[in-house]
Amino acid sequence: MSEVVYGRWASLETLRSARREVQQVLIAEGAEEKGIVLDIMAEATQRGLIVKRIQRRMMDDLAKGANHQGIVLRVSPYPYVELEELFVVAKERNEKPFILLLDLLQDPQNVGTLLRVADSVGIHGVIIQDRRGVSVTPAVVNASSGAVEHLRIVQVTNLVTTMRRLKEENIWLAGLDIGPNIVPIDRADLNIPLGVVLGSEGEGVRRLVRDTCDMMVTLPMRGHVESLNVATVGAVALYAAWQARSWEGWAHARSADKVE
Amino acid sequence: MSEVVYGRWASLETLRSARREVQQVLIAEGAEEKGIVLDIMAEATQRGLIVKRIQRRMMDDLAKGANHQGIVLRVSPYPYVELEELFVVAKERNEKPFILLLDLLQDPQNVGTLLRVADSVGIHGVIIQDRRGVSVTPAVVNASSGAVEHLRIVQVTNLVTTMRRLKEENIWLAGLDIGPNIVPIDRADLNIPLGVVLGSEGEGVRRLVRDTCDMMVTLPMRGHVESLNVATVGAVALYAAWQARSWEGWAHARSADKVE
Repeated sequence: MSEVVYGRWASLETLRSARREVQQVLIAEGAEEKGIVLDIMAEATQRGLIVKRIQRRMMDDLAKGANHQGIVLRVSPYPYVELEELFVVAKERNEKPFILLLDLLQDPQNVGTLLRVADSVGIHGVIIQDRRGVSVTPAVVNASSGAVEHLRIVQVTNLVTTMRRLKEENIWLAGLDIGPNIVPIDRADLNIPLGVVLGSEGEGVRRLVRDTCDMMVTLPMRGHVESLNVATVGAVALYAAWQARSWEGWAHARSADKVE
Repeated sequence: MSEVVYGRWASLETLRSARREVQQVLIAEGAEEKGIVLDIMAEATQRGLIVKRIQRRMMDDLAKGANHQGIVLRVSPYPYVELEELFVVAKERNEKPFILLLDLLQDPQNVGTLLRVADSVGIHGVIIQDRRGVSVTPAVVNASSGAVEHLRIVQVTNLVTTMRRLKEENIWLAGLDIGPNIVPIDRADLNIPLGVVLGSEGEGVRRLVRDTCDMMVTLPMRGHVESLNVATVGAVALYAAWQARSWEGWAHARSADKVE
């Protein structure tokens, strides 16, 4: 079985992470060989892959009409990992577990944005429910700018069962919600073995998931529009948690690209 | 001159804020009268406006193909305000000025997301450059879920000149950037009269804008993808600043909607 990855950053990070088998590297006719396209071609060459030019219309079909930016890879399916691998990573890094749990999120753009942030704060892994919620589709890979290709993602059939398993590992589960009488995020101690739980757009975390959390925290809001996008809430929460960990693992003086 | 507002939340908040003249309230044939559509109809009736049903295809044309969710308003242009009004708001609320400055952002989705967060943290106003950057277009109104209809937005021809004016008012300007030797956001004192400056997608803040800032701050990143979307960076920065102000103006026990 094969699937596609489309988009420039998504394709480059897929090649860089080298976790999927790459069957074809396709570039649209007319796409200029400069910038990141050159980086992709160099990565492909280094891995002994042949770069093929195809008609833009064929590429549109492969990407099912999405904005592919002239680049498509044919690849093996996304390599999900087992839950235990997350604990191993935490131990190897000598860090308290730091995990993100997504309860039935629907929008690939939101999920992609969240996964990009998850990569940015050095999360040890992400747990998503495998039915009714979004999985790691080409749209998610693209929306994450390829960050998912470096992340460890676990797909589970029952999020609540997995949450109980995390609690056995002494990981505390903090759910994000809006409402009265919920602790604001800066009042909670997040410098602990932690799972951050985000609920779906519109519905929030499901009742049983909420009941399984050890604490609920909220982002204060004082505006007229009384909700925020879940990707925004999650980004602020993940950064708050990482800040509570004193930016553990951050190479302060590292040179990096501009804000995109 | 008239323009349109499309989308359910955008339309509802435009009616609620009552800052624009609403010439027509248009609902697509077949759109069900329930939920937020009912709220919109109630708001329209209360303001003595007639709700008109039109063909979906006509609505597609009005919204120029965007996802209008069956609702379009014909309205007077977006009511930008003068810079001085921002200082007045801060004084009236008895708060230190808290302002957002956008330097040549391009993507309506990013700008809309940022403005929704700006509303959420109770920003006193937003300053955007009027050429080469995005203005408050129907796409921005929609992407902000209507938050812009409650915000004070100032359009200026020269951002650097306006920054100098803010400095005369003893407002400190903190620019967000990525790179080595930049102070992480939690090390900066943000509980001051503050302007948060965000640069464009891809380019970041322009040189002269950067040089006019009083300090540059950064979000730490430890991931493989070495940049974050500007809307994510801005959301985390605005929340960090509001947290530094001890969530000033937040009605703690306020009941609110679910995370979207």
